[in-house]
Amino acid sequence: MSETVTLSVDEVHALAKAALLQQGFADNHATAIANTVTMAERDECRHHGLFRMPFYMNGLWSGQASPSIEPVLTRLAPSVIRVDAGYSFSPLALEAGDAPLAELAQEHGIAALSVVNALNVAALWPEVERLAQRGLVGFAFVAAAPYVAPAGGTRPLYGTNPMAFSWPRDGLPPVVFDQASSASARGEIQIRLRDGKTLPDGWAIGPDGQPTNDPKEALAGAQLPFGGFKGSNIAMMVELLAGPLLGDVLSFEAGARDTANTGAPCGGELVIAMDPAKFLPGGDRKAQLAHAEMLFERITGQTGARLPADRRYEARARSAEFGVKVPKVLHETILSYAAGQAIKERQAYEGDHLTHQNQAR
Amino acid sequence: MSETVTLSVDEVHALAKAALLQQGFADNHATAIANTVTMAERDECRHHGLFRMPFYMNGLWSGQASPSIEPVLTRLAPSVIRVDAGYSFSPLALEAGDAPLAELAQEHGIAALSVVNALNVAALWPEVERLAQRGLVGFAFVAAAPYVAPAGGTRPLYGTNPMAFSWPRDGLPPVVFDQASSASARGEIQIRLRDGKTLPDGWAIGPDGQPTNDPKEALAGAQLPFGGFKGSNIAMMVELLAGPLLGDVLSFEAGARDTANTGAPCGGELVIAMDPAKFLPGGDRKAQLAHAEMLFERITGQTGARLPADRRYEARARSAEFGVKVPKVLHETILSYAAGQAIKERQAYEGDHLTHQNQAR
Repeated sequence: MSETVTLSVDEVHALAKAALLQQGFADNHATAIANTVTMAERDECRHHGLFRMPFYMNGLWSGQASPSIEPVLTRLAPSVIRVDAGYSFSPLALEAGDAPLAELAQEHGIAALSVVNALNVAALWPEVERLAQRGLVGFAFVAAAPYVAPAGGTRPLYGTNPMAFSWPRDGLPPVVFDQASSASARGEIQIRLRDGKTLPDGWAIGPDGQPTNDPKEALAGAQLPFGGFKGSNIAMMVELLAGPLLGDVLSFEAGARDTANTGAPCGGELVIAMDPAKFLPGGDRKAQLAHAEMLFERITGQTGARLPADRRYEARARSAEFGVKVPKVLHETILSYAAGQAIKERQAYEGDHLTHQNQAR
Repeated sequence: MSETVTLSVDEVHALAKAALLQQGFADNHATAIANTVTMAERDECRHHGLFRMPFYMNGLWSGQASPSIEPVLTRLAPSVIRVDAGYSFSPLALEAGDAPLAELAQEHGIAALSVVNALNVAALWPEVERLAQRGLVGFAFVAAAPYVAPAGGTRPLYGTNPMAFSWPRDGLPPVVFDQASSASARGEIQIRLRDGKTLPDGWAIGPDGQPTNDPKEALAGAQLPFGGFKGSNIAMMVELLAGPLLGDVLSFEAGARDTANTGAPCGGELVIAMDPAKFLPGGDRKAQLAHAEMLFERITGQTGARLPADRRYEARARSAEFGVKVPKVLHETILSYAAGQAIKERQAYEGDHLTHQNQAR
């Protein structure tokens, strides 16, 4: 029903980048964030696309996100590298860690990248898809703010804590999944709130600990893990891998630190890369990938079953041909950022933030 | 209702080992298998305990499992080692890889162990618990035989494909989970079949692709992944990590190879270890573990929520004090193995196997 504007993928990138630059992001950060937003919009992952632009701005306006700091890469151990994002948004730090991680995995067989002090409101599939495009197997784990109750509990503790995985293919886009350990992504609830829709059963409990279908109650209460205690265990694992393992925060700490309520939690992300050829004496990657195809054929050969990223790749092809549809209201908001007309909104935000800061003291 | 025999934990080990030795396993294999079976029985993981003894015997009698081959360890890359089990059962190969993997992780920060050509009917938590007892974070992944349909599909393709994870604690037993990517472990269905019980909804479909509560129909049809498509993605990931990555088989290949229908699939297992101290500049493991305790406190502080391995640790304490209860029928079967009285059963098995071998030619 709501009006939309159709943009080409390049126009999405140009618009996002212009808005980020105009509001004060440095060129390299603006490019990396625009890359991330555009990839999501292109693949019809709406809640990580242009929908996230206000979150990037909130991070900037509140002073919680540095608009310009350079990521700092260090080697912590022979197979472990670390990129300190210095309290900036994660896309540039992840891009900075990508090639060094891949090289280390190709040399050692397995390697890990710790990204710390990074504000993250993006999907994880871009970083593991990049690794798979280099012929590597990838994992990524990131925590968030306390949104999800542990199985059996009633109070939010875990982030939506996604994990992503990628497997390379020969001449085909990689098999990739990126899934929240909550029953739904938080963005899906936020979009339903915006659109006045109710939630499916099993997504959330209200502040009273009882099941709810109301997005507002859900956001005030707690989301639920997917798949009961098993999904809850995955959420706990992600929390440990993205927090204490990296010397970064747990979701509840990230939430407490976001005093300006930007919705852009700051924390760690663990990325692991493995080189299949280093797991086989003789290292015949081609045979390994051909072997995996025997599995993929038997998945897609079953009516109703599909490979996890295929929906995104279909959207990607569609977007390249027909462009993407952006809600008019959102488009206008981003245009106003790009035109530098958001001063009022920005000042209000900063005022609010100062209030929070004073309270914290 | 069924009669039970109470054994001490040491008696379980002695009985299992005597049975394995009497039937022809070499001392080191018999010890490693008895260790695994005893740990499971002690922790009240019944379907990986003495219940599995006939599976070990089937593997031996059918000629599919070597009773005596020594595991061969090689270094494939600076951070990757491989143990070839040579078509023997996995416990000895996993024990052989444990210390070398831990040392490599302590040196490089992260390291991987590939165990190949191993028959596996055991749980995964022993190998990750061992790593955590050394202060490391552990992952393990293993496939099986084709039991589980991909989400949306109707035919078995994936194994029950468990993944395990461990996190070390200071002065406390580690936090460990080991969970099938199917809604239930296959052993849980087998035990319900044995006990004449029905299955909960959501565990399985029959050979007709329709939901079933009948354990027999479920074993002939397909189990279902936990948590819908997300659990299905985990199953696919495990399949790729334990098979093509290691140059070992996919579950459907392991199933086809088990011509004697032993129920003891042969394949690969991936174990990953990380040293937390190598992920933090300065390497303050104590601080990292103390940080993780802040999460654990907030899990156990919620009524109804608990840490994943606590049930096992409670059982462990109970078993140390009161011993374990073993069904009398199972106890007698194992006694007959130990007394060398299972010749008839063994010969029948071998006859059956020869028929299969002839068919295969």
